[in-house]
Amino acid sequence: MTMQLIDEAALADMTLGSTVLGAGGGGDPYGGMLLAREAIRKHGPVPLVDLEDVPDDANIVFIAGIGAPGVLIEKLPRAAEYEKVLIMLEKHTGRKFDYVCPAEAGGFNAVTPFTTAAQAGIPVVDADGMGRAFPALDMVTPTLYGGSTTPMVFTDEHGNSMYVECESNVWAEEYARAAVSASGANAGMALYPMTGAQAKAWLVRGALSLAVEIGRTIREARAAHVSPVDAVVQGQGGVLLFTGKVEEVERRNERGWTMGTAELSGLNEDAGRTLVLNFQNENLAAIRDGEIIATSPDLIMCLEMESGEPIPSEEIRFGYRVAVIGLRADAHWRTPAGIKLAGPRRFGYDMEFTPVEDFVR
Amino acid sequence: MTMQLIDEAALADMTLGSTVLGAGGGGDPYGGMLLAREAIRKHGPVPLVDLEDVPDDANIVFIAGIGAPGVLIEKLPRAAEYEKVLIMLEKHTGRKFDYVCPAEAGGFNAVTPFTTAAQAGIPVVDADGMGRAFPALDMVTPTLYGGSTTPMVFTDEHGNSMYVECESNVWAEEYARAAVSASGANAGMALYPMTGAQAKAWLVRGALSLAVEIGRTIREARAAHVSPVDAVVQGQGGVLLFTGKVEEVERRNERGWTMGTAELSGLNEDAGRTLVLNFQNENLAAIRDGEIIATSPDLIMCLEMESGEPIPSEEIRFGYRVAVIGLRADAHWRTPAGIKLAGPRRFGYDMEFTPVEDFVR
Repeated sequence: MTMQLIDEAALADMTLGSTVLGAGGGGDPYGGMLLAREAIRKHGPVPLVDLEDVPDDANIVFIAGIGAPGVLIEKLPRAAEYEKVLIMLEKHTGRKFDYVCPAEAGGFNAVTPFTTAAQAGIPVVDADGMGRAFPALDMVTPTLYGGSTTPMVFTDEHGNSMYVECESNVWAEEYARAAVSASGANAGMALYPMTGAQAKAWLVRGALSLAVEIGRTIREARAAHVSPVDAVVQGQGGVLLFTGKVEEVERRNERGWTMGTAELSGLNEDAGRTLVLNFQNENLAAIRDGEIIATSPDLIMCLEMESGEPIPSEEIRFGYRVAVIGLRADAHWRTPAGIKLAGPRRFGYDMEFTPVEDFVR
Repeated sequence: MTMQLIDEAALADMTLGSTVLGAGGGGDPYGGMLLAREAIRKHGPVPLVDLEDVPDDANIVFIAGIGAPGVLIEKLPRAAEYEKVLIMLEKHTGRKFDYVCPAEAGGFNAVTPFTTAAQAGIPVVDADGMGRAFPALDMVTPTLYGGSTTPMVFTDEHGNSMYVECESNVWAEEYARAAVSASGANAGMALYPMTGAQAKAWLVRGALSLAVEIGRTIREARAAHVSPVDAVVQGQGGVLLFTGKVEEVERRNERGWTMGTAELSGLNEDAGRTLVLNFQNENLAAIRDGEIIATSPDLIMCLEMESGEPIPSEEIRFGYRVAVIGLRADAHWRTPAGIKLAGPRRFGYDMEFTPVEDFVR
């Protein structure tokens, strides 16, 4: 049985790595990390258990924060919300949950389950429903297999709460967005209740230990004065898509999403080339000199060239020198159903899915 | 013990009378009447019990539909929603409800509780939380005494449902509006759960039998070829504020409300005068030649001059010949707290509350 304990140090690595897996989105994990760290200090390290070690009849639920990333930065959520979501879900479904798990290992939501788990005294499963971050509640691997977003619980920082049952995952997304808008802030959610057997069939195994590993790689490369970008690319079998300087950013807030484009001019061997990134929270497509070289569901990430610091789409701005790297999406996403749910057309881009490994420099 | 049975004939009178009490808003009760009539045909007449006969320890809850009136006209709600709201509320609160009651006796929501009551086999209390209609969930007499909108249940016609707990009635209104917007349609609600003792202290007694009485008055006046407008004014101690022809209507949909103004030119003894009505679903102020002559919370109603047919704010248009009549609001609303909650300033009009009985022709 594989189990590690997530203490403050592991949490710090996970926070850094989850920002990389956020692929430009997922929300700044800093606020979520503060909450989780406080909960770990108070209640002790949280066990992280391998997905394969979860009993088939166990009850598992995703814990997530929801809100525009801009809101997450300005208003810190409260730990109490992340405890209350689980208590309310148990009360209203009559199910006792044995494990919590992140919906997305990218960004803010990688660490939020640790606040719940530490308070409730239960472990976190080393898995998620994306292997990255995506901007909508229904864009998770359970959706590919008929998993249901609801029953879900939503609690905001004003103390308001809702228990919701929806007829489809798209409806659940509509209701959650509407509730975020009503609350005027971010909120905690418990969603996609599932059994251990379902979790094993549906989830991306090892997503959280991957975040820890990526964070550790960057930290150790910095300490050893080697390139964190190279270390991540080599360590994860990634693809260096482009190195360049950010020239222009167009960004707007639309229905709570950070949408827009960033244009980069090439540096080093990319001198003379141009790269355009399209984002809706997450980076969804990379277009080099008019040619699509990577798209969602594969991960497209901007790391600051020297420090390897991941640059979210809402913070990218003129003058940043970045390495744009690509990483294969989990196998769940590489299926026709996965590409339909989270490929470029789902986001309104008239492009084919372009596997990142097909890119030849 | 006073109890009457609401059968199809009484329901028809109530439907007509509730449109008058809607004071321009409340939504077209036709769709609600069809549902209630169907439920009464299937399950039998529904007992309407006097508020004073309700035991102090009974459990009572408001049943209401929510949505923009325009939506109510286009999409009929389903009876199942109005049964489900009560079942869900009982399941999630653990309380068994003995009676249902309308939140507002004006418009669509006067009759919706009868659909629930017939299906659940319980009586309706002859009372409401307004004695009329208002455009917001928190504008009910229980709010004046600390009553809470939540726990509430919301179910839409797609089969989605929510159980909501809010920290204030204003938050509950925000969440309900957001849910209406997410559902894209109208929805059934169960809200303001209260005891019999609370209901007696908080509610407007006799609001539903008043609707039946007004409907009967109009029906009988029509049959006797006398003026329904005169019959209502005399029967209810109302005030004839103006008779005139609708010249111009400005109307827009804003956050689900029908907002705007109607301008009337005087007829008969009002010849040469002008009356402006301001409405937000309900008529909120009547201004004659620049002078405020009636405001919310008093009732301001337009009846077609010949037939006495009540004209809702969303249907009023050029050419209608109407009598504008005023009726004193219930004593709950005539308090400083009542005027603060539902007087003209609450709706953004910079005017003092002007008691309708002060108007001298």
